[in-house]
Amino acid sequence: MLDKNLQITIVGLGLLGGSYAQGFYEAGYTVNGIDTDENAVQYALQQGWIKKGSTDVSLLKESDVVISTLYPLVLKEWIQANGCLLKAGSIITDVTGVKRQIIDVVNANIPETVEFIACHPMAGREFRGIQYADAHRFHDANFIIVPTEHNTKKAIDLAEDIAHALKFQRISVLTAEEHDEMIGYLSQLTHVIAVSLMNMSDNEHLVSLTGDSFRDLTRIANINEKLWPQLFILNKDYLVKEIDGFIHEMESFKQMIETEDEEGMKEKLLQSTERRKKFDRK
Amino acid sequence: MLDKNLQITIVGLGLLGGSYAQGFYEAGYTVNGIDTDENAVQYALQQGWIKKGSTDVSLLKESDVVISTLYPLVLKEWIQANGCLLKAGSIITDVTGVKRQIIDVVNANIPETVEFIACHPMAGREFRGIQYADAHRFHDANFIIVPTEHNTKKAIDLAEDIAHALKFQRISVLTAEEHDEMIGYLSQLTHVIAVSLMNMSDNEHLVSLTGDSFRDLTRIANINEKLWPQLFILNKDYLVKEIDGFIHEMESFKQMIETEDEEGMKEKLLQSTERRKKFDRK
Repeated sequence: MLDKNLQITIVGLGLLGGSYAQGFYEAGYTVNGIDTDENAVQYALQQGWIKKGSTDVSLLKESDVVISTLYPLVLKEWIQANGCLLKAGSIITDVTGVKRQIIDVVNANIPETVEFIACHPMAGREFRGIQYADAHRFHDANFIIVPTEHNTKKAIDLAEDIAHALKFQRISVLTAEEHDEMIGYLSQLTHVIAVSLMNMSDNEHLVSLTGDSFRDLTRIANINEKLWPQLFILNKDYLVKEIDGFIHEMESFKQMIETEDEEGMKEKLLQSTERRKKFDRK
Repeated sequence: MLDKNLQITIVGLGLLGGSYAQGFYEAGYTVNGIDTDENAVQYALQQGWIKKGSTDVSLLKESDVVISTLYPLVLKEWIQANGCLLKAGSIITDVTGVKRQIIDVVNANIPETVEFIACHPMAGREFRGIQYADAHRFHDANFIIVPTEHNTKKAIDLAEDIAHALKFQRISVLTAEEHDEMIGYLSQLTHVIAVSLMNMSDNEHLVSLTGDSFRDLTRIANINEKLWPQLFILNKDYLVKEIDGFIHEMESFKQMIETEDEEGMKEKLLQSTERRKKFDRK
């Protein structure tokens, strides 16, 4: 269980940072918060979610645990500027949706006495800002811990304790390679598909004719335009591979349509039906 | 309002034919039903949804209105064999999800005294068989009437009366070209995308890591493998055009990822977000 005497500081009080603060508060923990936006800090203070709040980094020197909820490219800049300020013996963790590059850059910019343990709470949504914070969304979400060979058991246990304190439904452990490959397929490719389907044609006149299928496939085309390009860029090798694989599958199906290969299509539809059933929520 | 004295016969008592029979029954109409499967006929009789049922086509000669719920290629064969049996002065309609080819083949195989009015109730689902019939699903579904220049007001009015009797939420009127183009994009392309995303890789080990996005995009990968290849083949010109347009959009986005064009991606995501908001259910 997470030690209640640890000084925990959340860096970034947006949708996710605010939800973390709320979740810790509701679980009986005391945390502090940092954000460059004074309004976000005041909101967290007024809600009672954080004890101390600041727009500068002075809280770092007294923090045993630092949780960055910054966007990936923002975290890269922030750690280059502030990594040296982290307290000796402290642990820093994060929430970013891509891992290999983040792990490398954070480790390169923190003192030897500080340990970074990478985490990915899979609980994003299309809204942004602390006013949309909702820690209860964690209760049916996955929390992924992404340790490297250099991580200690102490740091990995701490990551698990955080997930338990915030009441995540499930904890998984993946390598950075496994994580980024999985995210490239399950999350990033699906968002590129939804955006492309929405953008490919001027479709406003079709609203009244639209059924559930199209709405399902484009729900995530309503997307945070600041965050996702950063995620795509930091995972571009895997993402491009997934896009190529998907286009190859589409081209192959298109050829069956063109040649009126009814049997070939039937096999593909049977396969997709069988596979999809395994993904039904239990 | 639909005349209660009309002799109405439903051809095909599956998911949709059964739902039609149930809907007419619940609205106080008496209809008859035909299916080659004796069990389906018995089921409809036992539910009280049809008054007379048969596995042959003898009911046609006394029917003022014939509603085919057959799959498109089955309807093509059926009308070639039985079109000449339709009663003089009767009207035949359908439920198929593609229109240009169906309109041509039905009109070529019915007597001059019979009129075909094409309809598309947009209320399909992944289940099949009369045991899944549910007329209440029509209450939030679109009913599309697809008249040609040869259709009379009487036939178009009858199609509207059917939609009203079955309590469809909305009635739209489109040309066959408009219908098939719209369906190629909103429905057929989305199904090809879902099937391709599901089939492109062996993904069973990812079930425990899967979030809402992937589940949303693949829900319709659970698909009727007998019906959809027929729909794809009968609309292949439009569908192939939509697949090409979609792949072009994906390739263009992929290039932005490869060149790390953060601003270009932002614009695309802002566009998709703005467009998607118009598709939110009111």
